[in-house]
Amino acid sequence: MRTRTDKPGRAYRYALVVSYDGTHYAGYQIQPGHPTIQAALEAALKQTAQEQVRVFASGRTDQGVHARGQVIHFDLRKPMPAQTIFRAMNAVLPPDIRVERARRAPQLFDARMNATSKEYRYFVWNGPTLTPDVRQFRHHVWRKLDLRAMRAAAKSLEGRHDFAAFTANPRREVEETVRTLYRLSVRKSGSDVVIVARGDGFLYRMVRSLAGFLIRVGMGEIPPAKAKEILHSKIRTALVPTAPPQGLFLWRVSYSRR
Amino acid sequence: MRTRTDKPGRAYRYALVVSYDGTHYAGYQIQPGHPTIQAALEAALKQTAQEQVRVFASGRTDQGVHARGQVIHFDLRKPMPAQTIFRAMNAVLPPDIRVERARRAPQLFDARMNATSKEYRYFVWNGPTLTPDVRQFRHHVWRKLDLRAMRAAAKSLEGRHDFAAFTANPRREVEETVRTLYRLSVRKSGSDVVIVARGDGFLYRMVRSLAGFLIRVGMGEIPPAKAKEILHSKIRTALVPTAPPQGLFLWRVSYSRR
Repeated sequence: MRTRTDKPGRAYRYALVVSYDGTHYAGYQIQPGHPTIQAALEAALKQTAQEQVRVFASGRTDQGVHARGQVIHFDLRKPMPAQTIFRAMNAVLPPDIRVERARRAPQLFDARMNATSKEYRYFVWNGPTLTPDVRQFRHHVWRKLDLRAMRAAAKSLEGRHDFAAFTANPRREVEETVRTLYRLSVRKSGSDVVIVARGDGFLYRMVRSLAGFLIRVGMGEIPPAKAKEILHSKIRTALVPTAPPQGLFLWRVSYSRR
Repeated sequence: MRTRTDKPGRAYRYALVVSYDGTHYAGYQIQPGHPTIQAALEAALKQTAQEQVRVFASGRTDQGVHARGQVIHFDLRKPMPAQTIFRAMNAVLPPDIRVERARRAPQLFDARMNATSKEYRYFVWNGPTLTPDVRQFRHHVWRKLDLRAMRAAAKSLEGRHDFAAFTANPRREVEETVRTLYRLSVRKSGSDVVIVARGDGFLYRMVRSLAGFLIRVGMGEIPPAKAKEILHSKIRTALVPTAPPQGLFLWRVSYSRR
């Protein structure tokens, strides 16, 4: 049935939840000559919809970073059932990228602009050996981490702050660096120590900087009380290393219901 | 310090707990011209101990099957600290094989003969899409599994039985097929359905046969009550498919303390 909005000439917007293993990609964003998530999604969509389509994500992920719940949107000139997009894209995508869900979206839905919060999870394998089946999705820390210290430091970073000391901004761009961390917690599950960061937005390499700092706290190299001091300094120093990419997952992007 | 037992000419026995990602191996046992876990372990041990050493496992695992807690033993002519073996082997082994623990073992310790029970875990990913980061360690079943039915069938297979109907014996060898299943349980964790099988020993492809059968029960294709009937028939039929290898982990091997 053709509805009132299905007029020729207009665009039909879709939103997809996408997961990926970032191991073999040069990050999310298209870079000519390198495999990227965006390029793989656009190629699959071209095969699916027979249109050259540009996709827009909630945000980029760096080289080697994974996703369980990245969100993208795009427009088609010819409408297709979302379920057909879901099936057809999963049939042509490589197995390290999956469309988890597909939906028709409101015409003004924007995966980046409409996101109300994002959750990242950083996975540390804290044991003598990095068990093979998780090796591409964990940062391996041999030394026993002090979870109490990590939790104390994490707690003091929650809230609305200027996170300039916890970002890497290679181009020294003038950028607003105030963000709200709704939650920064540290969980233990077997040999995994999982750092969960949920906020209204994240600066460049902010989660990996928070993780890198918390790991140093957990190793006893920095007292937890130092967290507030570093935050207030607004200056990035060697106290805040960038944890390696393979432990990081973009876990979930949230949108307000309308 | 040289102890009374450290005489030249005698052998020094060691036991190792080993984990591996079986994806890229033709199984545990040495096969000329194919990469195997045993060959990789013996090569690493040769580099570590400067001896050509044969290793003996608690049992073979098939092509594509993984391990979290395989146990092996071997003898050295020159003793080395277990911690040195642990470190040196992990330094030369590929990252898809790890030595989790290393110990000096009693001279008569035998990884296979002394095992009192073994635990396998079979991981089914039960959801519309196989999430990329677990794709090499799960069997993907799209259709929603009925856990109650699976648990009822599993329960009726526990205990001491002739499991001839749940093994694949390609060479039709005359073999004792009575085994004790101490436990056969079905757990749910997120999208994972995990079949845990613990027993005094397992026949060839027995765990994958039990998993294949339970999955068919979970899909509603076979009523749970059929389990006892199949067991008593002692004849393998198409009702018992072999589940694919990538979902299977040898999880733990237990030994009685002396």
